[in-house]
Amino acid sequence: MNDFHPYTIIQKKKNKETLTDKEVKTFINKFTSGEIHDYQMSALLMAISINGMNVAETAALTDAMLYSGETVKFKGNNYADKHSTGGVGDKASFILAPIASACGVKVPMIAGRGLGHTGGTIDKVEAIKGFKTDIDLKKFKKQCEKEGIVLIGQTPQIAPADRKIYAIRDVTATIDSVPLITASIMSKKLAEGAKSIIMDIKVGSGAFMRNVEDATTLAKSIIGTAHRFKRKSVALLTNMDQPLGSAVGHSLEIIESIETLKGNGPKDLTSLSIDLAAYMILLSKKAKTLAEAKKKARATIKDGSALKEFEKLIKLQGGDTSVINSYKKLKVAKETTDVKATQTGYIKHFENDQIGFMCTEIGGGRKKKTDKIDHSVGFIFHKKIGEKVEKNEKILTIYHHKKQQSQVNKIVKTFQKEIIHMSKRKVDVPKTVYKIIGDKK
Amino acid sequence: MNDFHPYTIIQKKKNKETLTDKEVKTFINKFTSGEIHDYQMSALLMAISINGMNVAETAALTDAMLYSGETVKFKGNNYADKHSTGGVGDKASFILAPIASACGVKVPMIAGRGLGHTGGTIDKVEAIKGFKTDIDLKKFKKQCEKEGIVLIGQTPQIAPADRKIYAIRDVTATIDSVPLITASIMSKKLAEGAKSIIMDIKVGSGAFMRNVEDATTLAKSIIGTAHRFKRKSVALLTNMDQPLGSAVGHSLEIIESIETLKGNGPKDLTSLSIDLAAYMILLSKKAKTLAEAKKKARATIKDGSALKEFEKLIKLQGGDTSVINSYKKLKVAKETTDVKATQTGYIKHFENDQIGFMCTEIGGGRKKKTDKIDHSVGFIFHKKIGEKVEKNEKILTIYHHKKQQSQVNKIVKTFQKEIIHMSKRKVDVPKTVYKIIGDKK
Repeated sequence: MNDFHPYTIIQKKKNKETLTDKEVKTFINKFTSGEIHDYQMSALLMAISINGMNVAETAALTDAMLYSGETVKFKGNNYADKHSTGGVGDKASFILAPIASACGVKVPMIAGRGLGHTGGTIDKVEAIKGFKTDIDLKKFKKQCEKEGIVLIGQTPQIAPADRKIYAIRDVTATIDSVPLITASIMSKKLAEGAKSIIMDIKVGSGAFMRNVEDATTLAKSIIGTAHRFKRKSVALLTNMDQPLGSAVGHSLEIIESIETLKGNGPKDLTSLSIDLAAYMILLSKKAKTLAEAKKKARATIKDGSALKEFEKLIKLQGGDTSVINSYKKLKVAKETTDVKATQTGYIKHFENDQIGFMCTEIGGGRKKKTDKIDHSVGFIFHKKIGEKVEKNEKILTIYHHKKQQSQVNKIVKTFQKEIIHMSKRKVDVPKTVYKIIGDKK
Repeated sequence: MNDFHPYTIIQKKKNKETLTDKEVKTFINKFTSGEIHDYQMSALLMAISINGMNVAETAALTDAMLYSGETVKFKGNNYADKHSTGGVGDKASFILAPIASACGVKVPMIAGRGLGHTGGTIDKVEAIKGFKTDIDLKKFKKQCEKEGIVLIGQTPQIAPADRKIYAIRDVTATIDSVPLITASIMSKKLAEGAKSIIMDIKVGSGAFMRNVEDATTLAKSIIGTAHRFKRKSVALLTNMDQPLGSAVGHSLEIIESIETLKGNGPKDLTSLSIDLAAYMILLSKKAKTLAEAKKKARATIKDGSALKEFEKLIKLQGGDTSVINSYKKLKVAKETTDVKATQTGYIKHFENDQIGFMCTEIGGGRKKKTDKIDHSVGFIFHKKIGEKVEKNEKILTIYHHKKQQSQVNKIVKTFQKEIIHMSKRKVDVPKTVYKIIGDKK
């Protein structure tokens, strides 16, 4: 490779040419090894952001990032995982993973932490005392094979190139590029060994994808890449114009997840968790039809087997299983302040990303990667889009600390003025799932 | 400026939005001061390369780069300089500057060194023993005011932002961007204080601009920027499909320059030097019409006054003036090898950039910025485009060292096979000047 010039690769992409498999892989490998500089990578990332990449180039990029680290290989075909592009109040993993596991699907989950307005699965599960998420890949594999369920945080062993590239994308406005998002997600998902990858692509004011068209493009890119790596994949494009379920905040979301596994969950959260789990069950051949898969999924809630799987997961990873029946074991802030409606009408729209940022404001999220999370704070929504509220009726309750009262009072006002949009006319309850793309068997 | 986010600026340009004056200037200033990282600058440079900049943005970029360093201010309106975008065998500066100076134009020249296939004015003049080019700006100004002619190399005092940005462009495939080229050229030209800027925009196989359309775009961008800074500017789009004149190589080009000042120069070099000098004379109001300016220019060759100006320049800057009448004072390699025609026909085309690279191969150019130049090597062309040659007739002579013989033999073969293109049919002698754009008084 003496004749390899990073300059030429960057120039090709700048000129909208297609890069060869070898060009993409060599560039990534030489960047990972430190031979190609950050400023050259950022120039290429910008050229990709503007001029795009086709499925073959995206697959080459994914491949290079995937094999920059370790990969897990499972023998059976019943290993499935879900990935969400991130939203506000999204705790579906804690519900769908136990459901799928209870139906014979093996679920190897490697999840992320929160940043900005979106929460992270790993941060949330750590609200449970003792729950360990820094488990090595060997143990991760073993637990999944033997127990059928495992949940760990990102590890440096998996796709180190992605980590290095993401750090640059984060500060160079190259986050929202379909091929770059695809390669980042897929390099990690392929490395964790799942044979079926169920995507929950969030769409709306609380998501990175603001419309169905952009989400469809991303879905097709991900599914195309999955197929090149001989994996099954389906993408559900789902509503993120309001929080999923009623709870936003770490402990509050764990409580809501357990309630949902007990059959008492909010409708949107329950139905989306069932839908996502059903595809895991279907693609893992644990049901013959989607209808059968959904029926099986629902049954695991009714008969308590899904809840048992969750309890098993907590136990396996050193967590305090008594939370299942005693929510007092989770730290929840003592003070509560209600946000009330300033007029009578129907809830039309939320500035959902702002809800996430408000939770971050009171400590329930990170502004910087090094920030510590306060698991105890958060919101409980009593009303959602399409519901009628009377003037002075409670829309949500904020859980916070006493010393935060004046800050919270400001948040209440901002919420009333800027975050919630009301309508005098009746508003339809929005769909939870907009569109399903990809493998359906 | 607490609310300044480099990310937002990069994103705007990525999304083809127009940056404000303040956004451009703050980004450049913070990059120069080290607050913005190389990888963020390279992302912005790539976004500019692909999505462009309008005249206002380009002027803001030029302004920021210009005022990142010192600037020279002259009082009179008769200060003019020429800038060439770089080519093979271009020694016009050594001819036009003395001509213009002899006609009462004051010529403050800050010139560059060569890299890749193009030679540099400063490297060439250093072939003259003792000629000092590292003169500070204070002395530069004084000499120009008093003597009317001065030639120095790039100094870190002038436009340090350009230097820092160029180092990144050089390795990130963002060289050939019209707004970036414009700002790079103009920040330096405006800083040196000339009131009229004459552009020689090279077009062809030995130039960065391969066609007249691209060169026209660059010319308009430069002239538009010059006007925003209240300077006059004219651009001549000139032929670079073959070397200018007959000589390529440092000492050989100095000899050819002196010969041209003595009235014995090649036709293309003489006429282009007269044309460029005439615009310097015209825009500096030292002639009323272009015809009068050309007549005055030609007269300075005939009466020897231009040659005297060149001799004065050499003397002022510590060089050995005896070269004027004794070319032996210049180092020229002793060995010569001829490249002969392999068939009878008309010369149709040269791969002119390859001619530059071949000169670099034998030491007469730089591959890396730190390479040392061998002033003694080079080529003399006996035949040019449109001329008829018989089989085995000499096309050019290579001046080299004995130890380079086997390397030179290879170059001869490459030249015959790949660099020169012949035609059985008659070929027209190409125009020297394609087009003139900008101020004509």
